[in-house]
Amino acid sequence: MTGPFISLLTDFGAGDPSAGIMKGVILSIAPDARLVDISHEVAKFSIRDGALLLWCAVPYLPVGVHVGVVDPGVGTERRPVALRTARGDALVGPDNGLLRAAAERLGGIEAAHVLETTQYRLPVVSASFHGRDIFAPAAGYLALGVPIEALGPAVAVEDLVASPLPEPRAEDGGLATEVVYVDTFGNVKLGGLTADLEAGLGSLQPGDALRLDFGMTADRAGVSEATTWQTTFGGVPVGSSLLYEDSYGRLCLADNQGNAGARLGLVEGQAVRVERAAG
Amino acid sequence: MTGPFISLLTDFGAGDPSAGIMKGVILSIAPDARLVDISHEVAKFSIRDGALLLWCAVPYLPVGVHVGVVDPGVGTERRPVALRTARGDALVGPDNGLLRAAAERLGGIEAAHVLETTQYRLPVVSASFHGRDIFAPAAGYLALGVPIEALGPAVAVEDLVASPLPEPRAEDGGLATEVVYVDTFGNVKLGGLTADLEAGLGSLQPGDALRLDFGMTADRAGVSEATTWQTTFGGVPVGSSLLYEDSYGRLCLADNQGNAGARLGLVEGQAVRVERAAG
Amino acid sequence: MTGPFISLLTDFGAGDPSAGIMKGVILSIAPDARLVDISHEVAKFSIRDGALLLWCAVPYLPVGVHVGVVDPGVGTERRPVALRTARGDALVGPDNGLLRAAAERLGGIEAAHVLETTQYRLPVVSASFHGRDIFAPAAGYLALGVPIEALGPAVAVEDLVASPLPEPRAEDGGLATEVVYVDTFGNVKLGGLTADLEAGLGSLQPGDALRLDFGMTADRAGVSEATTWQTTFGGVPVGSSLLYEDSYGRLCLADNQGNAGARLGLVEGQAVRVERAAG
Repeated sequence: MTGPFISLLTDFGAGDPSAGIMKGVILSIAPDARLVDISHEVAKFSIRDGALLLWCAVPYLPVGVHVGVVDPGVGTERRPVALRTARGDALVGPDNGLLRAAAERLGGIEAAHVLETTQYRLPVVSASFHGRDIFAPAAGYLALGVPIEALGPAVAVEDLVASPLPEPRAEDGGLATEVVYVDTFGNVKLGGLTADLEAGLGSLQPGDALRLDFGMTADRAGVSEATTWQTTFGGVPVGSSLLYEDSYGRLCLADNQGNAGARLGLVEGQAVRVERAAG
Repeated sequence: MTGPFISLLTDFGAGDPSAGIMKGVILSIAPDARLVDISHEVAKFSIRDGALLLWCAVPYLPVGVHVGVVDPGVGTERRPVALRTARGDALVGPDNGLLRAAAERLGGIEAAHVLETTQYRLPVVSASFHGRDIFAPAAGYLALGVPIEALGPAVAVEDLVASPLPEPRAEDGGLATEVVYVDTFGNVKLGGLTADLEAGLGSLQPGDALRLDFGMTADRAGVSEATTWQTTFGGVPVGSSLLYEDSYGRLCLADNQGNAGARLGLVEGQAVRVERAAG
Repeated sequence: MTGPFISLLTDFGAGDPSAGIMKGVILSIAPDARLVDISHEVAKFSIRDGALLLWCAVPYLPVGVHVGVVDPGVGTERRPVALRTARGDALVGPDNGLLRAAAERLGGIEAAHVLETTQYRLPVVSASFHGRDIFAPAAGYLALGVPIEALGPAVAVEDLVASPLPEPRAEDGGLATEVVYVDTFGNVKLGGLTADLEAGLGSLQPGDALRLDFGMTADRAGVSEATTWQTTFGGVPVGSSLLYEDSYGRLCLADNQGNAGARLGLVEGQAVRVERAAG
């Protein structure tokens, strides 16, 4: 029989042994688990970045246990939780909003439990490494078939910390949102899907002229970018920019074989408004 | 029974969830697959770097499916392909030269097919993430035993895009080639094997004096390096350079416990000529 | 049945295919092995960093084979070894001190053997990549059940190279030790456990005032830091420093949600003395 599937996403970084140690703990409990790393390079303490990457990944993963650890509040009163989704997955991590968008994408949360049962933790729980001492053991025992209810008391979904991902707003013939992520290619992900943009601008065709106005940040003036709506990178010359639906359905500004984020100096959290421009 | 073996090499970077998502797709199709990452840190869009790393790795991997995704042409007309090698492997990736040198090292290409069969792709194919939507599913189905012929129409080997790796030239008592890769230790891999150098300079013995003349680049003058031929790093003092046969059989310039690439400011693609020098 | 467990720790870096190639070699020999990466981003040639990370990780890993490759002496006379521990693990790597502290933590060394048997190496052994040619095959065969005695002649434990990790000294009402590691969060690990500090300062309570005097380095004057002993990050405001027992039991200086190592310009190997200060 094929072993249970467990994915991991953290901000520990490849230089730390922490992710490997979590895997050691998991395999000590569930020796047959099949482990996949989504990323351990989430920007340090960025719950929003982690939430977005997890949202992107989970629909493509087998049903299983997904552990997320981006946890600036470790050692404080924030709760460790496990969430059961309608698809049949379990999400494990801190109750700080990290897991919410991914849970919605897997059909929504059917049950949430605080990870309090000492039997399903390591014998000694440190103040600073709950990934090893609480989350990895919980993932291992869930993978073995321990029911989520056994891990600790239920918590109501409305009492969980909300998602940090912004809701886009269609207004005045445009779409107001934020930069939510700049990927390693310099592609700039905006908050919102193509349907959100079409709600503000009407139906979009390849070549439609657009203007993006990025707000000022702590250390820069705002910047505007004239671009076009496209369905493929090949729709514009090398070096030109395009707005397109990325492979996850999200709005994305990119330079064909270039780095739009670096060229425009864009940062996560920066406000942006998208409008039609004169063709 | 042991599951099928699948290796992955991409330029996605550890910060992106893309490689983890490809693994999720593969395990959704072939749950027992054993996955190994060769690297996801190939220099962005560098087909040559990816081709070299894949060439280095494949002889040491079990017979299986090897997926390579360095794909600046994604979203254009470039073809997605699978190649069957004489050793019994399948190589999966874009038809842009990335897979050719590795295929030759596995005995040569016995069959090449374009990945067109919709049944062996994800239901929705995006314009920008064929690693997830086309290559990962193809790898999963090949690992399950689907014959390569079922994935799409055959393409003649001579119609595939050629390898980007340079052929060294023995001429005028020297060897003319290029820097093909500078590794994370600053060791500088040249295009060519020891046999190529001996064709130009005659038989080599440890301690033989050599001169390397690196050509000018866009932003630097050329540079010369006096060094010696060695069979081990221990043949020269700490801090001194040596030319040696690296562990893959290739010519390599290194500093013993130092960083030759940084010291000399060498870059990939830079021309180099190797000659004997006065001892 | 569940396959044997093998962990890997190296300084090869994620950009090199070397770790993936080692895994290919291992799975060619032991196809059912379960592989976990501890880290491949150990600072280049830093035996001390590698020794510390391995010491941190091994108690949380299943009993199995643990391969460590931080090997500035590759190609010289340094010996390749395998160590059998009292817990039942095998540690495989160069005899340069890298494996010693981890072996002590697994109950101590019961047997040590030099990896000389050609049958348990790759057919061709290069001068510069023993990870692939000697250590990975040894790990694979040990995982298959080959006894450690078959790998080569025994070596006495007292003839193995000692650990590079410093021993802390309680003296004059303080503790004298070194910075042993600065992690990716900028948390500064000191040589020594809480028990070592209490041997010098007496029993510690949260809030106790402390002073740390860091010695001068090659390019900086010394620096002093006033801080407090704490059991959780939440014990001090965001941005303030604390000395605490890290999740491995070691003494650690950190800034709550900040980077203490960068703020104070601390480097590994820097001397430090810890004393009580006026509250």
